[in-house]
Amino acid sequence: MHIAIDAMGGDFGPRVTVQGGLEALRQWPSLSLTFYGDCHSIQDVIRSAPRWKKTVLDRVQMSAAGSLPVGTQPPSRILRDRDINAPDASSLHACIRAVRDGEADACVSAGHTGEIMAVARRALGMIEGMKRPAISSAVLTDHGHPCYVLDLGANIDCPPRHLVQFARLGAEMVRTVDGIQNPRVALLNIGVEPSKGTRCVREADDLLREFCTTNDRFHYLGFVEGDHIFTGDVNVIVCDGFVGNVALKTSEGLARVLGRRLQHTFELNWWTRLVSILARPALSRLKEEIDPVRYNGASFLGLTSTVVKSHGGADARGFSYAILRAVSEVELGLPERLAQGLTA
Amino acid sequence: MHIAIDAMGGDFGPRVTVQGGLEALRQWPSLSLTFYGDCHSIQDVIRSAPRWKKTVLDRVQMSAAGSLPVGTQPPSRILRDRDINAPDASSLHACIRAVRDGEADACVSAGHTGEIMAVARRALGMIEGMKRPAISSAVLTDHGHPCYVLDLGANIDCPPRHLVQFARLGAEMVRTVDGIQNPRVALLNIGVEPSKGTRCVREADDLLREFCTTNDRFHYLGFVEGDHIFTGDVNVIVCDGFVGNVALKTSEGLARVLGRRLQHTFELNWWTRLVSILARPALSRLKEEIDPVRYNGASFLGLTSTVVKSHGGADARGFSYAILRAVSEVELGLPERLAQGLTA
Repeated sequence: MHIAIDAMGGDFGPRVTVQGGLEALRQWPSLSLTFYGDCHSIQDVIRSAPRWKKTVLDRVQMSAAGSLPVGTQPPSRILRDRDINAPDASSLHACIRAVRDGEADACVSAGHTGEIMAVARRALGMIEGMKRPAISSAVLTDHGHPCYVLDLGANIDCPPRHLVQFARLGAEMVRTVDGIQNPRVALLNIGVEPSKGTRCVREADDLLREFCTTNDRFHYLGFVEGDHIFTGDVNVIVCDGFVGNVALKTSEGLARVLGRRLQHTFELNWWTRLVSILARPALSRLKEEIDPVRYNGASFLGLTSTVVKSHGGADARGFSYAILRAVSEVELGLPERLAQGLTA
Repeated sequence: MHIAIDAMGGDFGPRVTVQGGLEALRQWPSLSLTFYGDCHSIQDVIRSAPRWKKTVLDRVQMSAAGSLPVGTQPPSRILRDRDINAPDASSLHACIRAVRDGEADACVSAGHTGEIMAVARRALGMIEGMKRPAISSAVLTDHGHPCYVLDLGANIDCPPRHLVQFARLGAEMVRTVDGIQNPRVALLNIGVEPSKGTRCVREADDLLREFCTTNDRFHYLGFVEGDHIFTGDVNVIVCDGFVGNVALKTSEGLARVLGRRLQHTFELNWWTRLVSILARPALSRLKEEIDPVRYNGASFLGLTSTVVKSHGGADARGFSYAILRAVSEVELGLPERLAQGLTA
């Protein structure tokens, strides 16, 4: 298993991506990585952390690649101006090229979502019948299996037929990754009555009902509201990328505020501080359970190969989770199984 | 101060609306209420709770009004079929009519958002220059003042100029309600770069920048992502009703799950249960602080009178907060001050 890492992507570059990569190598002994980017910076990070064993460092390779600032221009501009085969292409281009050329099984980047999607789509191509990749990520739920929401920002204007594609992609992923044979799929809306919502979601609802009369790959539940993301009674929630992104970022923001409020509550006076010491094991377990870092790593579904996007602001541990997400998708042969499932 | 209550609205009807009304009367001695709906059901609830003092009950009136099931038909259908002046109009129609005819200063309903908006808009009319009401609600933030998000579901397809109107309405409300002279206003988007998002938000961004070159009623910050709803650094966040509604419902769902997780954490074994007893005062205070019930009551901004919508699933205490929201808007003369502010 060999994964290409865009070392220069994200808010912190090699400091996070290389550290996170080494952490993933430690956890997964049959994994090897190539870091694409500025070799000096990459080596600096590797050298500054002498605790890594030789058995980890032996599985690291490096490849020089340009690192123009990511996310500063619209993706179309970047694409137009840059050739993926050019020697001065960005670290993102280089690691997607490695996947295209069979040098890596998958790639992971914390770069600009639109750029990753555009470059990957052009270089790797789509599964037959799929128009555009959808970004999907697992979300913590109240019990049992996670819920996958898609799209999370790759497609901001989605015609109804794209939402149907997202539903199919999400369902096949849940079958493959979570082993659920009859995934429960719903459309995100602002009410459950058929009259609610935009014309687009109402048309997608019609199309999905029609699709499910001739196909039993998933169970279509109809509309759900935003709170159903977390209840655990739905496996896949479909929406356009604008709405999905807002829902995700809003949740992250609320979780952070509530976490801080909880902490302040226990720092109020000597008594609460004492109680917090007693409560520490329980609260640490809760923190670990609900830690969004564990869910870092969004998949671009619909591409012919595995491409995982890490949160731009993730730390090294978060980035290592994104790599392990890519590892598990490669292990499961997710793109191939999605392609099979969609023609079944 | 006299407020008209749609007793039949919401998931629980009089059981919640009448109880909530009596609770609001107890808290606000100069308030009186008329409950519109089925007088038998209303009286049943009043009678079944003998604890209410005469000083509360003396301020209650009732008025018989039809109660067709709400929310079962599309709003346009209901509007077309029903005349607000008809004797068999719904309880919602009756209480909006009371406001129109000057019999009440404001009305509160837990009914169907689209129906409330459509009936109120037609019967009460809009502030000059405003096209459509926007629903706005206060949201808990990390410090200090609440953040108001609008629209929350009344307008699912918003042209850019409507988003500008929402920004202006929100800003004037914050000036009036929270006394902030230079409110900080932002547009909700999926990134902060000017190239991000739909054409609609990008055009609204241009219009708002242009508006602020000649008008200093608020400080326009540009784009923010969903997590900024809770940070407290923005006073007003503007979005279309679909996105706002999803963000709101998603937050409610996440808050519920995290609350339950916290509770489970403390119920795990005898030690955590012991700790939870010691932590109870602190946790109760936290629960009270972050209780979404305290923020129940969404305002329809842009109408010539105060109309407040309670959450359909709110309990009596929640409904009483929605009434108190209406009381404070009437006290502040919010619709008049919005009208003044918008022409300033």
